[in-house]
Amino acid sequence: MLTRMPPPPRSLEQRKRDTLEQLRGAVDLWVASAGEDGDAHLVPLSYYWDGSTLTVATVRASRTARNLIRSGRARVALGPTRDVVIIDGSVEAIALGADPALEDAHARATGFDPRTLAAEYVYLRITPHAIQAWREENELAGRDVMRNGRWL
Amino acid sequence: MLTRMPPPPRSLEQRKRDTLEQLRGAVDLWVASAGEDGDAHLVPLSYYWDGSTLTVATVRASRTARNLIRSGRARVALGPTRDVVIIDGSVEAIALGADPALEDAHARATGFDPRTLAAEYVYLRITPHAIQAWREENELAGRDVMRNGRWL
Repeated sequence: MLTRMPPPPRSLEQRKRDTLEQLRGAVDLWVASAGEDGDAHLVPLSYYWDGSTLTVATVRASRTARNLIRSGRARVALGPTRDVVIIDGSVEAIALGADPALEDAHARATGFDPRTLAAEYVYLRITPHAIQAWREENELAGRDVMRNGRWL
Repeated sequence: MLTRMPPPPRSLEQRKRDTLEQLRGAVDLWVASAGEDGDAHLVPLSYYWDGSTLTVATVRASRTARNLIRSGRARVALGPTRDVVIIDGSVEAIALGADPALEDAHARATGFDPRTLAAEYVYLRITPHAIQAWREENELAGRDVMRNGRWL
């Protein structure tokens, strides 16, 4: 049972600063995707944050890649469950070799380079349209920090 | 960039012990669900683990409740992204008042009691059919600890 009192809710400005810090500082996120069959999938992936978009790489034949390419939309989450950043975004598939600067940056950020692997990978660039940030129940109000692609 | 070497992969027995410990010890999990529209949803929820099933509670009108009740299936994840437990399971909706012992246990485990809240909640009991557990890349092989509802 949780009995401790959470600290007072953060201001919008503080949440935006914390969100950007988490995006810059974290390595992995949870990627949710939905199949045509109406089943949800969920996996952790490493990502590269360029200041406005997130890029992940995964095997092209994986459920995550197929789902994201089909729907063109992802919902991803960073951070522990009591300090979450949740992002809804559009997805663009980028073939290996199409953007070497991005591929180099992805390899530096994630510590793995799909260009060196035998399986066929694809990069998926996620552009956030909506971002929410909250820690505890008392931060559910005011959790939106981005809407319609704009920081509030 | 991650350069440290991970420890050697755990045995199946160790993974099962660690998975049960995580299920008993954690409070929150990530719940992925899919809508009829083919969009994925993802939220953190607190849960109660009774030794074989997980019970969460959420607002009946929420996307998560509607998606899970529609599809009858959930994919949920526990733990940090480098020590994951990922569960695929079937979902059963339980109305408030239908199982007081379960509702008491849920309130004790999660620290909140939907029976005291103004919004209409529903309990969702998830029965695992498949569970995977891994820490780093080198544990991807052998990540299945449950298949077809049976511990391996």
